[in-house]
Amino acid sequence: MTTLRWGLIGASTIAAQHMIAAIRANGGDVVAVVSASADRAATFARDHAIAHGTSRLDDLLGSDDVDAVYISTTNELHRDQVFAAAAAGKHVLCEKPLALTLDDARAMVERCRARGVVMGTNHHLRNAATHRAMREAIKAGRIGRPLFARVFHAVYLPPNLQGWRIEKPEAGGGVILDITVHDADTLRFVLDDEPVAVTAMTSRGGMGREGLEDGVMGALRFASGLVAQFHDAFTTRYATTGFEVHGEAGSLIGTDCMTQAPKGDIVLRSKDGETRLAIDHENLYARSVRLFQEAVAGRGSPAASGEDGIKSLSVALSTREAARAGRETAIDLRV
Amino acid sequence: MTTLRWGLIGASTIAAQHMIAAIRANGGDVVAVVSASADRAATFARDHAIAHGTSRLDDLLGSDDVDAVYISTTNELHRDQVFAAAAAGKHVLCEKPLALTLDDARAMVERCRARGVVMGTNHHLRNAATHRAMREAIKAGRIGRPLFARVFHAVYLPPNLQGWRIEKPEAGGGVILDITVHDADTLRFVLDDEPVAVTAMTSRGGMGREGLEDGVMGALRFASGLVAQFHDAFTTRYATTGFEVHGEAGSLIGTDCMTQAPKGDIVLRSKDGETRLAIDHENLYARSVRLFQEAVAGRGSPAASGEDGIKSLSVALSTREAARAGRETAIDLRV
Repeated sequence: MTTLRWGLIGASTIAAQHMIAAIRANGGDVVAVVSASADRAATFARDHAIAHGTSRLDDLLGSDDVDAVYISTTNELHRDQVFAAAAAGKHVLCEKPLALTLDDARAMVERCRARGVVMGTNHHLRNAATHRAMREAIKAGRIGRPLFARVFHAVYLPPNLQGWRIEKPEAGGGVILDITVHDADTLRFVLDDEPVAVTAMTSRGGMGREGLEDGVMGALRFASGLVAQFHDAFTTRYATTGFEVHGEAGSLIGTDCMTQAPKGDIVLRSKDGETRLAIDHENLYARSVRLFQEAVAGRGSPAASGEDGIKSLSVALSTREAARAGRETAIDLRV
Repeated sequence: MTTLRWGLIGASTIAAQHMIAAIRANGGDVVAVVSASADRAATFARDHAIAHGTSRLDDLLGSDDVDAVYISTTNELHRDQVFAAAAAGKHVLCEKPLALTLDDARAMVERCRARGVVMGTNHHLRNAATHRAMREAIKAGRIGRPLFARVFHAVYLPPNLQGWRIEKPEAGGGVILDITVHDADTLRFVLDDEPVAVTAMTSRGGMGREGLEDGVMGALRFASGLVAQFHDAFTTRYATTGFEVHGEAGSLIGTDCMTQAPKGDIVLRSKDGETRLAIDHENLYARSVRLFQEAVAGRGSPAASGEDGIKSLSVALSTREAARAGRETAIDLRV
């Protein structure tokens, strides 16, 4: 097993709750964390048994003890941090959305490619055993030609996360850049198809500040002709998540599967009746780190590449534009 | 009980499968049926123990033995048949969509009003105990402020109905005029709210002829700010139907309830956990006929009025326009 020594850029909730454990579960070391606040960096390092906490990105990137970085700062910071990490020759696993514009995201991927470092986007959901099982079932022809998909990703934003996501347009707040971006990646992965256009309607249900939507419903047309609908929100306390694909010869009904936890069920309905698919659940983040470190070792690719991150961002930006303009909007998939 | 003597205009599947029994269950008589084909009228009359079968609308409307008509011909015929029935002083229960244009639908309602006959639209779903229970739960505040609704009405069009619905634009074919029109009425009824704009994407999944969609996904914005999404199709053999409303303080999850049969479940999720609502199922069409005959007797209104039929048609026409133009489309609710 190729293990990596990681630096964390961003002393974030997701690093604390998921990624540090995922790195260690793969035999990796977390050797340093950087945060804008030196105090926060020190506290975070102590709480998570990380040797170094610093407010200076250069210190982390200048260290020979760091092979790869995991970036989970707010979205407007990703670009320059990826640029700096690539320049320092560090492999990069970056949170979604990669950036706030397609040009920035493309430049980030290009810098990593030019410098020969691996770049991945931390889309956790394509690592879920549920979504992998749906993809395999479709490829095996178990629902015939897929005609429609439905994504239910309306959740309640926990109080500890009710910060920039509902307050700061300039940091990439709003439910579309936070959640629709995941729907886009998961649809692309499960369907093995590319979205070409989107329509959407947003709403504000009491959480998002002026100019920041906290709910969205929309439809995506894919290259195959399939149409998918999605519902994302920060404001629904009692909705459960789901992911469905309806084909000519069967339907796949995923419940409780748009989540960070390794859980959820997939039922296949067809002429043979209803079957619950056997799902071998695995920690989503541990798998993301595992595939990333394998890619660094020259074996395969990250679960979601930098190019995948460009495409999911593109869907999100087009969704926002479609809702604002009230117009079906084409999706630019150039990477 | 005020019972009525009915004439059927249209020897249709829905008359045969649902409405004749619903009329008789309410003590009413079915005294005549008219069909474009005299043979078909005679056969239908014999099969259903109806005294008179004719191809001449004037015969039926000229009879003093007919108090009310039920119109279930193809959609392009409704207008002139309603005009003729109103002129003859017959009460009118008409299938949806009322007509192919808003002007026609408005004129139909106006003729009935001017002549003093009762007019109803045969939207069966607002007669379902499931949908009435959801409306009551919302009015009672059990989910707080409603934020989102979802309507799943993707079905498989039975082979015996795979005729004009997938072949004839001029008869009002396509899934939007056939099914979305029901979603619109059910949403208006359950939410007690009015739709103001719609976005939509259509598809053809192998059933609809060129120019006739057999699937649609869309979103509706309501006056309250709520956004609803819908999925309607003729092509999905293994999807089940559903109707959900997600509010600030709870969610109502209806399953198997967008159907002609008196069935389906409603679950309420809130801080108190999950509760299955007690549903006292009743035949949807029997209730429609009962309320119609009560209205004729001067007690109350039909379950869905002519005005309700104008509004559901308006939503459907705007949905078709939104999908064709790729543009969010305002809904004209003038009656």
